[in-house]
Amino acid sequence: MIPEKPLYEGKAKSVYLSENPDELIVVFRNDMTAFNGVKHDQFTDKGILNATASEFFMKMLEAEGIPTHYIRMAAPDTMIVRRLDMIPLEVIVRNIAAGSMTKKYPVAEGTVLERPVVSIDYKDDERGDPMINDDLIEVLHILPADELKQVKEMALKVNTVLSRFFDECGIRLVDFKLEFGKAAGKIYLGDEISMDSMRLWDKQTGESFDKDVYRFDKGDVITAYRNVLRRILPDGGKKD
Amino acid sequence: MIPEKPLYEGKAKSVYLSENPDELIVVFRNDMTAFNGVKHDQFTDKGILNATASEFFMKMLEAEGIPTHYIRMAAPDTMIVRRLDMIPLEVIVRNIAAGSMTKKYPVAEGTVLERPVVSIDYKDDERGDPMINDDLIEVLHILPADELKQVKEMALKVNTVLSRFFDECGIRLVDFKLEFGKAAGKIYLGDEISMDSMRLWDKQTGESFDKDVYRFDKGDVITAYRNVLRRILPDGGKKD
Repeated sequence: MIPEKPLYEGKAKSVYLSENPDELIVVFRNDMTAFNGVKHDQFTDKGILNATASEFFMKMLEAEGIPTHYIRMAAPDTMIVRRLDMIPLEVIVRNIAAGSMTKKYPVAEGTVLERPVVSIDYKDDERGDPMINDDLIEVLHILPADELKQVKEMALKVNTVLSRFFDECGIRLVDFKLEFGKAAGKIYLGDEISMDSMRLWDKQTGESFDKDVYRFDKGDVITAYRNVLRRILPDGGKKD
Repeated sequence: MIPEKPLYEGKAKSVYLSENPDELIVVFRNDMTAFNGVKHDQFTDKGILNATASEFFMKMLEAEGIPTHYIRMAAPDTMIVRRLDMIPLEVIVRNIAAGSMTKKYPVAEGTVLERPVVSIDYKDDERGDPMINDDLIEVLHILPADELKQVKEMALKVNTVLSRFFDECGIRLVDFKLEFGKAAGKIYLGDEISMDSMRLWDKQTGESFDKDVYRFDKGDVITAYRNVLRRILPDGGKKD
């Protein structure tokens, strides 16, 4: 049973209290936003597609020894997760230069980086999610240095697992964003791993299968998202 | 003899080739700009005041074992410096939260940080000098990791020397920006150390003695700059 009022309403997910105080209910909505909410639309099935991808990847990462908040699905668009104290950081891992990176620094879109790079934004919509560095994260008491190290190691391990998997599916994992949280002193991967949070390019054609399709009006975003599920799921995503 | 055309024209300094290929001529102009050039004025004596401060601090830092580009003064507003290959980074050291830091992160103006923090911007006016991190600096080949470490250590040593000195003058060194360059494989402190590049507050009253006076129309900026020289120079800045 989902309560009437969400505990927290994100741009594409709503989070509700559960009867179990250690759990939360996450509903993946059909809302799609870009440019910090300036662009906003709704697409049928979008919530289910992202929830399905997120379920798939959270289970894969758990199997690889990375603790995640995933507990079970309550409906195709509804995930029961462990309740975490969220760390207000967006951890971005990049394998190929794209997006804001190419606007900010002297590197061309599509450049394969010699190793994955991590950059971190302070998660605060009103401040525009500004970039932050390790020194500031520690001195402003956002996260102790040892836990930041652990978060970065987890992010790079997620990258190793996902990059290898996507490669086998004919997809390049260009970059992605993760969020983490803590429960009983332990760090878990939270939030989502979906076509909203990753940049995915077809290995052959370079075609985008991610939110850039929506951001830059490159075609039908739902078709792109379905393409990803067709390639990654054992049953080709037929359950959608 | 200063050539007619500058090699490089900055927002407040002009750089000319010298007859000696290992040297450059830096003229501190009376131009004052803020907000990436949006605000722009000229103030009589401003160039001389900043050149005098910069000469004073570069000599102090050399005496403390920090290599700087300073060679000699050719005129009160004109410094002969070692020609460096500049590293396109702005290295910012902060002791007290102020300015952009308090807009971007959850920390109030005036908060004394428990230790100095370093943050680094990629120096590129057209890109708006975006913040960068260690990982990106290395992978984008802006500076190798060992040289970045050296630059940060130099910046923190500059902070130790200047903070102690300013404290004795009744001034709090809130934050400052440094730039570095290389010559024959060695790293030198370049650019300037002046009231344009530091944030300085009176220890008793909290009054600003720096470019914030101009940025936020807090009073007469030349009076503020003269106040700094009066406090720091052995002769009270009488030569101006």
